[in-house]
Amino acid sequence: MTGEQEFEAVAAAVRERIDLDEDERERMREAVAGLRERAEEAIAELPVEADVIQVGSTARGTWISGDRDIDLFVRFPPELDREELESYGLEVSHAVLPDGREEFAEHPYVTGEYDGFDVDCVPCYRLDSATDIQSAVDRTPFHTEYLDARLDPDLAGEVRLFKQFLKGIGAYGSDLRTRGFSGYLTELLVLEYGSFEATVEAAADDWHPPVRFDPEDHATAEFDDPLVVVDPTDPERNVAAVCSPENVARLQHYARELLAEPREELFFPDPQEALSTAEVRDHVASRGTTPVAVRFDAPDVVEDQLYPQLRKSLAGVRDELDRRGFDPLRTATFADDSAVLFVELEVAERPAVERHEGPPVHVRQHATGFYEKYADDPAAYGPFIDGDRYVVEREREFETAAAFLESDAILDVALGLRVESALEDDYDVLVGEEVGELADEFGEELTDYFDPRP
Amino acid sequence: MTGEQEFEAVAAAVRERIDLDEDERERMREAVAGLRERAEEAIAELPVEADVIQVGSTARGTWISGDRDIDLFVRFPPELDREELESYGLEVSHAVLPDGREEFAEHPYVTGEYDGFDVDCVPCYRLDSATDIQSAVDRTPFHTEYLDARLDPDLAGEVRLFKQFLKGIGAYGSDLRTRGFSGYLTELLVLEYGSFEATVEAAADDWHPPVRFDPEDHATAEFDDPLVVVDPTDPERNVAAVCSPENVARLQHYARELLAEPREELFFPDPQEALSTAEVRDHVASRGTTPVAVRFDAPDVVEDQLYPQLRKSLAGVRDELDRRGFDPLRTATFADDSAVLFVELEVAERPAVERHEGPPVHVRQHATGFYEKYADDPAAYGPFIDGDRYVVEREREFETAAAFLESDAILDVALGLRVESALEDDYDVLVGEEVGELADEFGEELTDYFDPRP
Repeated sequence: MTGEQEFEAVAAAVRERIDLDEDERERMREAVAGLRERAEEAIAELPVEADVIQVGSTARGTWISGDRDIDLFVRFPPELDREELESYGLEVSHAVLPDGREEFAEHPYVTGEYDGFDVDCVPCYRLDSATDIQSAVDRTPFHTEYLDARLDPDLAGEVRLFKQFLKGIGAYGSDLRTRGFSGYLTELLVLEYGSFEATVEAAADDWHPPVRFDPEDHATAEFDDPLVVVDPTDPERNVAAVCSPENVARLQHYARELLAEPREELFFPDPQEALSTAEVRDHVASRGTTPVAVRFDAPDVVEDQLYPQLRKSLAGVRDELDRRGFDPLRTATFADDSAVLFVELEVAERPAVERHEGPPVHVRQHATGFYEKYADDPAAYGPFIDGDRYVVEREREFETAAAFLESDAILDVALGLRVESALEDDYDVLVGEEVGELADEFGEELTDYFDPRP
Repeated sequence: MTGEQEFEAVAAAVRERIDLDEDERERMREAVAGLRERAEEAIAELPVEADVIQVGSTARGTWISGDRDIDLFVRFPPELDREELESYGLEVSHAVLPDGREEFAEHPYVTGEYDGFDVDCVPCYRLDSATDIQSAVDRTPFHTEYLDARLDPDLAGEVRLFKQFLKGIGAYGSDLRTRGFSGYLTELLVLEYGSFEATVEAAADDWHPPVRFDPEDHATAEFDDPLVVVDPTDPERNVAAVCSPENVARLQHYARELLAEPREELFFPDPQEALSTAEVRDHVASRGTTPVAVRFDAPDVVEDQLYPQLRKSLAGVRDELDRRGFDPLRTATFADDSAVLFVELEVAERPAVERHEGPPVHVRQHATGFYEKYADDPAAYGPFIDGDRYVVEREREFETAAAFLESDAILDVALGLRVESALEDDYDVLVGEEVGELADEFGEELTDYFDPRP
């Protein structure tokens, strides 16, 4: 087979696994019709106008077999004040999903099940332009409208392939844990290039971040992201704002892999095996590093709040360990019931003394102050002269990373708010081979860590 | 007593110990007369004109009691070619010092003893201007001439005080081990300020390096030194070129000490006690550092060649240990029968792996080359993606400083020529408390190191 034929054969095999059969489509259509009827009945009882629309991938045929999300938006006139919107919106939503539960993004909405589908019922404003939106959910109907007009069934099939590829390589999802490609971004990229294959070819060969698209040529803002796709419905928004440099590079890497040697495993990789405690210990021993882990009860917030706080805290701890000379090699953060800030260090221990440079001797007043401060300090070596300055070697505050992490000084680094309160409450510190314990809860994450791949 | 009176009392006590009594002066005059007579007799036998002059501190009363150096220069016409100068010069010098031995600076000269004095007899050219000189020794008669006209007996006494002070604080001597203040520099500074006290007052209060004097206001060159004193006999030369920033700062520090609390000990400090092996080990243990020492047979060259080579080699080793992550805290070099490059490290050991950053993934050709190089390397972790780059953690070459120092890789750093051949021949490496052994040969130097003062 030629490369092109191999690619087509793999794409066909993947389509077979992800495309919806007529049965699934029919069940979906029936479910949506039933939900819509409930919504319209509830709207009829209200003293205001409203309509209901289906949005998202299931609305435009870009959903993948196995995904079972139906998103219904109930649109109210923009004159309605916010409290009324919320109260009428919830009334309709609860009528649609009597067993559903309320959640809160920017508006409250209701999430529940209907005939085996996961359904979100979300109130929003009906606006003339996406730039008038009052919250992120108000934007969704504009996306649906834009894509409905452009995505034919063939292109929808290409989008499904691209989505599955991104899932396979771990770059799909605009949640703040993944920081990957959103569904809408995937759709816009396929619209831009015309097919899945053209998209991966461009990513493999042509992308030199920053990569920039502006399908409607209407951008009114500058964006400082590796991938910029200006929202066709909003000139001030980069659809790819959340996409990390790693995920852009990851797509480029695996696009080249796929084109060089097309294979289904890239779309459906084998599940990661979890490392055992003993295996983690073996890795630590053979790497000769000093990993340290700060473990605490995971703060009870949604992932989109949790991960940014964990990353901020990890950076704070990492930078402070670096400043104190323990030379971080690599870091990670894990969360489940516990949360973990994991920093692998190159340096296990620093001496009891540290160099402390004083002013140049010729800056008389400062120099004399420095000299007198340390001249009678029995714990300090010096002052002596190096170059034109006084220098002392004085007692170091923390000789090991663990001593620092176990002290209150950890609370002085820049931590996420909920992480800070969790640490104030309680935490433990694991050092060296002790981090093997983490395999009980985070075995798969530790496989990713100790067998890192693009 | 007032501060001024205290200062005067200390100066008087020091003068008492360093000034020459009439007996010493008389013995010196007789010795010089005897030597001069021998020289003139030998000159009379030569087919060329020549004269003999006394130069240096004993010629102008700035010598300190106990110093016993007489410097005689035999001056020949500048038309003489160099070979003749050397041959006639040595003929006269050997006649002056029949038991003397030949040494070699830029010309050959003869050094020997006469009536208890150490005598150098040095041939040189008699020139009209110091800028015409062919070697450094030709300059000396010009210095003598310049100072003879300006240093009266009172000023000579001030110079002697200043010299003894510089000796006491360890900053006297323009040899390349000390890199301090030369006799000539000392004389010019006292001429500039008019007294010892005015000189130390200026150093204490007014010096903000670079400090610059040009007594004849005739400099024709720029100098990049902390202290610049343009030679009154040579506009292209900084008399203080060899003086290190440390010694300039040291003078400033001790000048302040002397003025704040005048005391004789600054001029005549107690001799340093040598550290024992056990004491060195105690210091190492309490500092928690990892000292390493490379010890080898001291190359058989004069100190003015040895120390620059040792320092260059020390810097080379230090920088390479720094580059390899062992974080040097402080360094020293010692020489006697052995020579030692001593580097005290903050980091004893690095992990088995080291981070190695590849190119950005989007730079396709380089990126693919990097990825393929490491993808099948079982010793490498990764490649994985960090930011927009491939990264691997690969095997580190040396996990300890000792492993590096004991390998041939030490010969790849920038070493002094004679140090390099010494290391090619043989050396040993001491690590941690093993450096205690060095106390047998370098106990006093180790006191300076572990009890460092300005």
